[in-house]
Amino acid sequence: MKEKSSLGEVKLEYFTFADKGKKMLLESGQQLGPITLAYETYGKLNKEKTNAILIVHALSGDAHAAGFYKGDSKPGWWDNMIGPGKAFDTDKYFIISSNVIGGCKGSTGPASVNPETGKPFGIGFPMITIADMVKAQKNLIDYLGIDKLLSVAGGSMGGMLALQWFASFPERIHSVIPIATALKHSPQQIAFDEVGRQAVMADPAWLDGNYYGRDKPQRGLAVARMIGHITYMSDKSMEKKFSRKLKEEKYSFKFRTDFEVEGYLRYKGDNFVKRFDANSYLYITKAMDYFDLSGGNLFPENKKYDTRFLVIAFKSDWLYPPYQSQEIVKQLKSRHIDVTYCEIPSTYGHDAFLLEVHEQTRLVKHFLLKTYNSI
Amino acid sequence: MKEKSSLGEVKLEYFTFADKGKKMLLESGQQLGPITLAYETYGKLNKEKTNAILIVHALSGDAHAAGFYKGDSKPGWWDNMIGPGKAFDTDKYFIISSNVIGGCKGSTGPASVNPETGKPFGIGFPMITIADMVKAQKNLIDYLGIDKLLSVAGGSMGGMLALQWFASFPERIHSVIPIATALKHSPQQIAFDEVGRQAVMADPAWLDGNYYGRDKPQRGLAVARMIGHITYMSDKSMEKKFSRKLKEEKYSFKFRTDFEVEGYLRYKGDNFVKRFDANSYLYITKAMDYFDLSGGNLFPENKKYDTRFLVIAFKSDWLYPPYQSQEIVKQLKSRHIDVTYCEIPSTYGHDAFLLEVHEQTRLVKHFLLKTYNSI
Repeated sequence: MKEKSSLGEVKLEYFTFADKGKKMLLESGQQLGPITLAYETYGKLNKEKTNAILIVHALSGDAHAAGFYKGDSKPGWWDNMIGPGKAFDTDKYFIISSNVIGGCKGSTGPASVNPETGKPFGIGFPMITIADMVKAQKNLIDYLGIDKLLSVAGGSMGGMLALQWFASFPERIHSVIPIATALKHSPQQIAFDEVGRQAVMADPAWLDGNYYGRDKPQRGLAVARMIGHITYMSDKSMEKKFSRKLKEEKYSFKFRTDFEVEGYLRYKGDNFVKRFDANSYLYITKAMDYFDLSGGNLFPENKKYDTRFLVIAFKSDWLYPPYQSQEIVKQLKSRHIDVTYCEIPSTYGHDAFLLEVHEQTRLVKHFLLKTYNSI
Repeated sequence: MKEKSSLGEVKLEYFTFADKGKKMLLESGQQLGPITLAYETYGKLNKEKTNAILIVHALSGDAHAAGFYKGDSKPGWWDNMIGPGKAFDTDKYFIISSNVIGGCKGSTGPASVNPETGKPFGIGFPMITIADMVKAQKNLIDYLGIDKLLSVAGGSMGGMLALQWFASFPERIHSVIPIATALKHSPQQIAFDEVGRQAVMADPAWLDGNYYGRDKPQRGLAVARMIGHITYMSDKSMEKKFSRKLKEEKYSFKFRTDFEVEGYLRYKGDNFVKRFDANSYLYITKAMDYFDLSGGNLFPENKKYDTRFLVIAFKSDWLYPPYQSQEIVKQLKSRHIDVTYCEIPSTYGHDAFLLEVHEQTRLVKHFLLKTYNSI
């Protein structure tokens, strides 16, 4: 049985650029090309091309934000927010969901073949930053013929991408919706990422990134993902979901899965390695750690901005705590930028951006309409 | 240069029991023996044997709580709290610091030789619980000829041991000082432990626990410890200590240590594997996860208790949040037990029990004196 999604079947598309010898310059000074971006679109672009919204995903996300792939029973990761009548209303807006470079979901990344060697890049892939990801996405928006996006929206790393869109190309966007995100990673966030990376690199199967065609560093990546999952939930939501419930009637007094929460984490870890490339995990977390739009970096140009912001945080999110969203708001206010801030009293922790549909729908719908009517 | 410690040189001692065929029955139903406990003592036992205090340690702690070993420049882990004139005043009290079974610091644990096979136990060591650890410690207290301890005190797992002393042997203690601890592990706490265990077990060098005499599962244990260290600090204390400070002048754009916090974690992880046995890490975290004195388990006997409690929590401790200490207090109050609760407004996170000397000293000193004067 398919979950209800009014978008129906969708298709992953690909756009390639920086080819024919014209590589893209990265923030590190290295060059990358050709570059392929995987993306999806939902709804219709209007004649004036003023109704396009870019959706940007989180660390382990991809371009498949909504609708179903043929034969699949599960829709895209933000299907509850994108579709006819939904927050990102496909009856009104043309939604573009773009994957990031460095990823492993159809876009150029460490698993791609290096044209110079004929072999997968591995960690020979150049280090990429959030700004590089956005620069690549801008090429996609150019290609789609859109001069100015109505909005860029995303949660977690998606929120960083949205903020970077503003920092890099403010003239190309009317509004930004950064959700459960930050201007920069705190040392705690860097620390969690670093432990995840160490877990991957500690796996002998990682082979300095040259594991393609061999056994994958599954156990290391699973551990990294397990750490991630703890940080995505809140103490309260874990208590509600698992409490101290046991898998069996009593303690095994063995090193096996006693508690349901252990089984859940192992399942999530094991599942993740089937769908995600370990090297991409390294590259993308590093990009997030490097990201820093604090200290005026959000405003590289000395000008007056007419971009509007809707900043959303979640009370129980301890990975990207509300104070980080409040710092974004403070920065924007200091430049007299139109910003609405909302802290949703959710208990879901960081995952709330994927789960708190009702509140987010109300906020996003209203914000987009106001933005659309103002242009 | 030695750090200042008025205790001077101390010596690790050993006590062996459950030998000559008389094994100790464990909670799992298995038996263990002979059992050796490593311990230290500071100060002098008075003639009436009424001034003895038992100090119990945390997950990675040991019997070396105070003073210096010959030639060492660093004192025991709670040296700032134990010594002449300190919180646990060795001029007044006789302090016993006992290691736990399952550990790797001189007490019987998975690295010990199984007398039945002549080889190290490995994960053939029976699963132990906090109650088993306490039962073993009670044998030590018997051996030392102490009928009733003035107090049992400890932080983190030490707090669990202290609570378990009350649940198991209330007639043997006048008071309990559980610090930064809980009646039971929440699913989040279990989850962090489980990820640490998975990191160890994912290391191929772990060899199902049979790595003694070979390479140790260093990288897995280092990852486990890195996770631990994040949970021991607070977001704020990490910000204060590291912020986004870099090791070099700028980003390396490589997979190396860019941020100081990364270097710190790697250092802590690498250091830990030199001094701790991976199997002990598995056993002790499992014991903590099994621990559950909620739902009336704190009071197995239907009687009136005259034990006093001093319960201490730290505001920024998110691993053992204050609400867990408050649950202890609530349970005690429901049985009309004399309990003082103090939440110290520390920013150090869980580590505060090792660092907030001034506040703890004030509280502990007064509490011990009051208890001592009441007996």
